[in-house]
Amino acid sequence: MELKKGLEDVAIKETSITFIDGELGRLYYRGYSVYDLASFSNFEEVAYLIWYGKLPTRKELEDFRKLMAEERKVPDHISSFVRQVSRNANPMDVLRTAVSMMGLEDSRDGDTIQKAIKITSKMPTIVAQIQRTRRGQDLVEPDPNLSHAENFLFMLHGEKPSSTDVRSMDVSLTLHVDHEMNASTFACLVVASTLSDIYSSVVAGISALKGPLHGGANSEALKQFLEIGSPDNVEKYVLSRLSSGQRLMGFGHRVYKTMDPRAKILREYAKQLSTEKGLGELFEIAQRVEEIGIKILGNRGIYPNVDFYSGLVFYALGFDPDVFPTIFASARVVGWTAHVDEYLKDNKLIRPKAIYVGDLGRRYVPIDER
Amino acid sequence: MELKKGLEDVAIKETSITFIDGELGRLYYRGYSVYDLASFSNFEEVAYLIWYGKLPTRKELEDFRKLMAEERKVPDHISSFVRQVSRNANPMDVLRTAVSMMGLEDSRDGDTIQKAIKITSKMPTIVAQIQRTRRGQDLVEPDPNLSHAENFLFMLHGEKPSSTDVRSMDVSLTLHVDHEMNASTFACLVVASTLSDIYSSVVAGISALKGPLHGGANSEALKQFLEIGSPDNVEKYVLSRLSSGQRLMGFGHRVYKTMDPRAKILREYAKQLSTEKGLGELFEIAQRVEEIGIKILGNRGIYPNVDFYSGLVFYALGFDPDVFPTIFASARVVGWTAHVDEYLKDNKLIRPKAIYVGDLGRRYVPIDER
Repeated sequence: MELKKGLEDVAIKETSITFIDGELGRLYYRGYSVYDLASFSNFEEVAYLIWYGKLPTRKELEDFRKLMAEERKVPDHISSFVRQVSRNANPMDVLRTAVSMMGLEDSRDGDTIQKAIKITSKMPTIVAQIQRTRRGQDLVEPDPNLSHAENFLFMLHGEKPSSTDVRSMDVSLTLHVDHEMNASTFACLVVASTLSDIYSSVVAGISALKGPLHGGANSEALKQFLEIGSPDNVEKYVLSRLSSGQRLMGFGHRVYKTMDPRAKILREYAKQLSTEKGLGELFEIAQRVEEIGIKILGNRGIYPNVDFYSGLVFYALGFDPDVFPTIFASARVVGWTAHVDEYLKDNKLIRPKAIYVGDLGRRYVPIDER
Repeated sequence: MELKKGLEDVAIKETSITFIDGELGRLYYRGYSVYDLASFSNFEEVAYLIWYGKLPTRKELEDFRKLMAEERKVPDHISSFVRQVSRNANPMDVLRTAVSMMGLEDSRDGDTIQKAIKITSKMPTIVAQIQRTRRGQDLVEPDPNLSHAENFLFMLHGEKPSSTDVRSMDVSLTLHVDHEMNASTFACLVVASTLSDIYSSVVAGISALKGPLHGGANSEALKQFLEIGSPDNVEKYVLSRLSSGQRLMGFGHRVYKTMDPRAKILREYAKQLSTEKGLGELFEIAQRVEEIGIKILGNRGIYPNVDFYSGLVFYALGFDPDVFPTIFASARVVGWTAHVDEYLKDNKLIRPKAIYVGDLGRRYVPIDER
């Protein structure tokens, strides 16, 4: 039996959801390039595409939007829990617990995608509650007349966001919706393969996404830019970090060997937003880190990934760095549940093995003879 | 890239925790046979062995027992949550949420095993709270003077249990402590490999264990015996079930191709307990199912597994079938956390791939042209 630590070259399933072309730096959802989807589509349409495999007609999209908008409200006892704990707790711990609570009432048999729609509609409400509680602000009720992205920012700030803000948020969510296999999606599948329920799967996805080697990276990348403080410090910072064997946060990906297409798209939004919000220097720092980083690491296939610029976008939109991973989760939940749905159509329990390397045949020695 | 659905012959790590000899039907923890451990050891000693790799001296065991006993109490807000929801909710959903809540206060950096001890000490308290709430009973505070198994039953019934009961509980927990790799332990590892925290890992483990193809099987097995109703019905039931292509609950295991040693040991406890509790007929039913099942399935390597008799033991000890998987979790948490600790000593992000089989290069069609 071969040891496949990390499962780097192991395929766990066939999929028709997402294709990553790591050599060329291309990403496709259901066969559509994310460049096209980021330019012409929006979060709800892409979620529909991921779940149902086709772009909706106008009527289908309208019904779907309405359904999602109606599901945004979170039960009162979950809101009060979120308010009670969010001042000090890690936002991902709060989100994990809140989704777990949602499962208590709705974990029984039923259509995976219908439950996925409920969860996806409610997660931004919880994220906004977490963020506002951290700032000591009152909660803002969701507005069913706004799009998913616009309502997300409305619940965050309590006022209608600018069109640049809405567009940036929408594209960011769209670009985080799925990414083929990855640690959190895989955690969802392992759980689903025992025929557990979809809430349990999503809870496992959030649990995995929390780690700094996964969804926690966007917050680390932004903190790195803040720590650098000025464009003049970038070169020294990057060199000292790399020469001491540390990673550059937001750089490198197991699949992309060139620039992550999501980073390319988000760079433009980060630029526009940071100019509008007076964060031009922070953007300059990021851009310098990108330049110098690529100069040093590019020939080894290490380039900026999605987390490099997404943190800057989320920061400019008014989120705390510690909250970023919960935004990531709010989008990725679409991919998690779509992959679970796809896997369950031909389920097989996921149960690898381990290779035993310890002692065998030890004799049990009574306690007083030890 | 090869498709390895289910990861059946893939080793994810090396381990010196547990070895399963599936051909001979043998199981070893840290090199000690579970036959010896079930005869001479106890839950606390085996937990110590699993976590630290050696049997404790008398002094070490006493200190360890004291530490665990002191950690049994669950914070009030978690107890009130459990009381509020347990009347109607799935016990595994409650346990998953309660452990997730525990993580809110304690997820930051720190020693994995020390946190594991806290979680392991508290889980039986939560399970007893769930069970008593389902019966409309008041909660019973843990008693730090009792052993882990004895206290578990004391919190369940509010009175000191008989020595047969304590011994049965202790052996059952001991036999569920670890089982090398499996879906729930693997879910814990996937989460841990992103450098998320140990609470997130355990929450993922509970999420996976909930499924009827994993920890949910003990409750299904017992319900099957209840449904059969009389030893005379067994043959007809088994034949009709198998001829209609259904599985026999509590039969079959991906690794054991003969009798699961845990089932052999638990059969004896199930027998003694069911005699004492007036459940002799239920035991007879189980034994008949075993006989007939082996006659039909044995030549294909399908034999009773741990879930076959554990449900009967838990039922005789006074637990509801729906609660059984939470008892399984209360023991398996030791193995989950030990495997996480072992994996993190040489961590590698677990990120398999998928093989894309969908369309590519689809053109984005504007909505009104669809």
